[in-house]
Amino acid sequence: MEYRQDGAHELNGDSKVQTLDIPKVGRQPDRPEARGGEKVTALDRWLVRKILETGGNPPIGVVVWDGEELRPPSPHAVGRVRLRDRRTLWKILANPDLGFGDAYTAGRIDIEGNLVEILETLYRATAAAAPAGLLKRQLVRWLSRPRSNSLRGSRENIHHHYDIGNDFYKLWLDDQLIYTCAYFPTRNASLEQAQIAKMDHVCRKVQLNPGQRVVEAGCGWGALALHMARHYGVKVRAFNISHEQIALARQRAKAMGLDGQVEFVEDDYRNIRGEYDVFVSVGMLEHVGVEHYHQLGTIARRCLKPAGLGLIHSIGKNRQSPMNPWLETRIFPGSYLPTLREMMNVFEPNGFSVLDVENLRLHYAKTLEHWLERFERVADRVEAMFDQDFVRAWRLYLAGSLAGFTTGSIQLFQVVFAHAANNAIPWTRAALYTAESRR
Amino acid sequence: MEYRQDGAHELNGDSKVQTLDIPKVGRQPDRPEARGGEKVTALDRWLVRKILETGGNPPIGVVVWDGEELRPPSPHAVGRVRLRDRRTLWKILANPDLGFGDAYTAGRIDIEGNLVEILETLYRATAAAAPAGLLKRQLVRWLSRPRSNSLRGSRENIHHHYDIGNDFYKLWLDDQLIYTCAYFPTRNASLEQAQIAKMDHVCRKVQLNPGQRVVEAGCGWGALALHMARHYGVKVRAFNISHEQIALARQRAKAMGLDGQVEFVEDDYRNIRGEYDVFVSVGMLEHVGVEHYHQLGTIARRCLKPAGLGLIHSIGKNRQSPMNPWLETRIFPGSYLPTLREMMNVFEPNGFSVLDVENLRLHYAKTLEHWLERFERVADRVEAMFDQDFVRAWRLYLAGSLAGFTTGSIQLFQVVFAHAANNAIPWTRAALYTAESRR
Repeated sequence: MEYRQDGAHELNGDSKVQTLDIPKVGRQPDRPEARGGEKVTALDRWLVRKILETGGNPPIGVVVWDGEELRPPSPHAVGRVRLRDRRTLWKILANPDLGFGDAYTAGRIDIEGNLVEILETLYRATAAAAPAGLLKRQLVRWLSRPRSNSLRGSRENIHHHYDIGNDFYKLWLDDQLIYTCAYFPTRNASLEQAQIAKMDHVCRKVQLNPGQRVVEAGCGWGALALHMARHYGVKVRAFNISHEQIALARQRAKAMGLDGQVEFVEDDYRNIRGEYDVFVSVGMLEHVGVEHYHQLGTIARRCLKPAGLGLIHSIGKNRQSPMNPWLETRIFPGSYLPTLREMMNVFEPNGFSVLDVENLRLHYAKTLEHWLERFERVADRVEAMFDQDFVRAWRLYLAGSLAGFTTGSIQLFQVVFAHAANNAIPWTRAALYTAESRR
Repeated sequence: MEYRQDGAHELNGDSKVQTLDIPKVGRQPDRPEARGGEKVTALDRWLVRKILETGGNPPIGVVVWDGEELRPPSPHAVGRVRLRDRRTLWKILANPDLGFGDAYTAGRIDIEGNLVEILETLYRATAAAAPAGLLKRQLVRWLSRPRSNSLRGSRENIHHHYDIGNDFYKLWLDDQLIYTCAYFPTRNASLEQAQIAKMDHVCRKVQLNPGQRVVEAGCGWGALALHMARHYGVKVRAFNISHEQIALARQRAKAMGLDGQVEFVEDDYRNIRGEYDVFVSVGMLEHVGVEHYHQLGTIARRCLKPAGLGLIHSIGKNRQSPMNPWLETRIFPGSYLPTLREMMNVFEPNGFSVLDVENLRLHYAKTLEHWLERFERVADRVEAMFDQDFVRAWRLYLAGSLAGFTTGSIQLFQVVFAHAANNAIPWTRAALYTAESRR
């Protein structure tokens, strides 16, 4: 990792009691007043040690509310976590992920050291620790089941994250507003270059040819649809249920003179009709809900011509596990990260052949380095737009996602698929890489 | 498909009653004498039509034993299937796949037309036909469960296919004796070129570097292990339980002066010990048995160093289905073709990240075109070595596999994987394709 997020969120140990309003991020955590001056008991210390033990004893110190530091067995601590009061400790005990995230957001926890590095350390230690028993895992799964992705549920879930304001995303995303994993042909490519390379990588994987018809499920602010139309001469129908995103996408199509070639439809992927040469979906599967994968595949099956190609790009996991409850509650309601096995629910019941799977985990880590760096540069403006809690929550979300990709606890799967009988599939993947194929 | 298998197995309609000895292929079908002269009844005709209907009414004529042709509803028949007697009809009714294969082997069924094309037509029609009910599918699954792949069971199963004589395989495989899917950089590459390209493709996917240690599970006659040592400067331990294959592989290593670098071990993959930079297994998973996938993955997990890469190459399917009973009984006892979902049993419980999946289905079709063409050229010598039934069984097996790949009813999955925390994974796949990376 080249990027180090220095300074922005370090505390020097002084008490910075939060006096902010209710945060705008998700359901509201209840926020007790600071309880400085509480005495730290033997039980408190025992509980802290128990939490560290359960988390695989990461080399991280814990500073409790009277200033005492409980050091890990490891001599080289990468940083310290500062707990403001006993109530925070109990909230973490009751629900580790949600409690930690909410307490960090509300300033009840502070981090001394590099946030990304500390989160990476926590993830690695937890992965190495003994797994929870079956009963506990079942319970966690039940408690953390994601919100419904019915037609209405999806609209509410998507509204929560994507309709918080285009102006916010414009502050720190690339100039084309692409909010999915980029593809860095070389590690030192710029974010703008890498997002263009990602779009070309996708277009080459589905073998776009001028005059073809493409349908896109979940189009964000429309960058990929516009790129396909502009550089590959195809017609695109692009679906999205985020009102704000579709509105901006339409403006952009008009400004680029592409509104005759690209149609942005404010509707659910379940309402896709018609026949297309290509089906693409980049960064939507995370919001579909595993119980709807079969249905998504059926829609792709119906709308894809016999010689067509499809591509689904999604964050995923190596092993089945529930979403981080804080992330699912505060940042991405209704989201779920599937394993490749679960992704097969899209393809297998619908008779698709999987042609190509590429894991771009380290490219998402690199993308997030850029996003986090840009986000920190505009943190003051984000705070003015929302509040400090919002900044802290998004910092934790971006840093946590980055740490997830660098430690391998989350993956990025790009899957190309086709009808089983389609023999017009790419012969090899060389065309993705040969200079001749580059526009 | 460029290759057309003309003439070799066409019959002109004359009765060629088989008078051969018991065939050497698998368990013996019982072989009634020909019953020429039996009268064809209305029931016989009704049964033939019923079979065709169940198979989706393929455009194929059926000639019954009195010479009458029952034509399909479609006007353009691609060929004819000739049934010698009523007993053959009943055998097909009782167990369609096994009955058909055995009857073809024994000359009770003859094919008029191009065998591959006719099998492709049958596969396509069956795929399009209504699926069997749950009870029937369960029954078929139970009846066609593969033989056990215990340590001893595997030895017997592998002996059945791979120990029938190196001289037989030398007649029609490439000069290096590679009995797995080749990789054709261009469609007109020779089989020899394509097998070398396949080995280089595998070596590049696992990023071989001089001095590394490689373990290979299921090494055939040793071509890949020898190629790795010779061209990439690595040390290889290669496992195989086929006595004949290992004996020849050792001879070749000695002849090439590579016996210091490559150790051929006549033992089961379950007895692999030690630590390696690379784990490869090309064309063994088909013989492992799905209930042992977890175990195979555990062996890979234990023997792969933290920064190591693994590759598993296997025939597979889009949807879970039992093996063709004829193939499993007569050709490949104990074999099973998994879906990608089932292959995840190797990776998911062992915490591996899947990095890359490439489906090389059409490359296996091309490989089989070459094999079948070469096999037909030496069919007389094979018949002298075994008997005519053996030739017919192998023709059906090769032609059926070719048809399976061209129609998409079987796939070839090449999967690259790594420990979840391994960040020394390839940054992109460009090195597989850039000219600089070619030896």
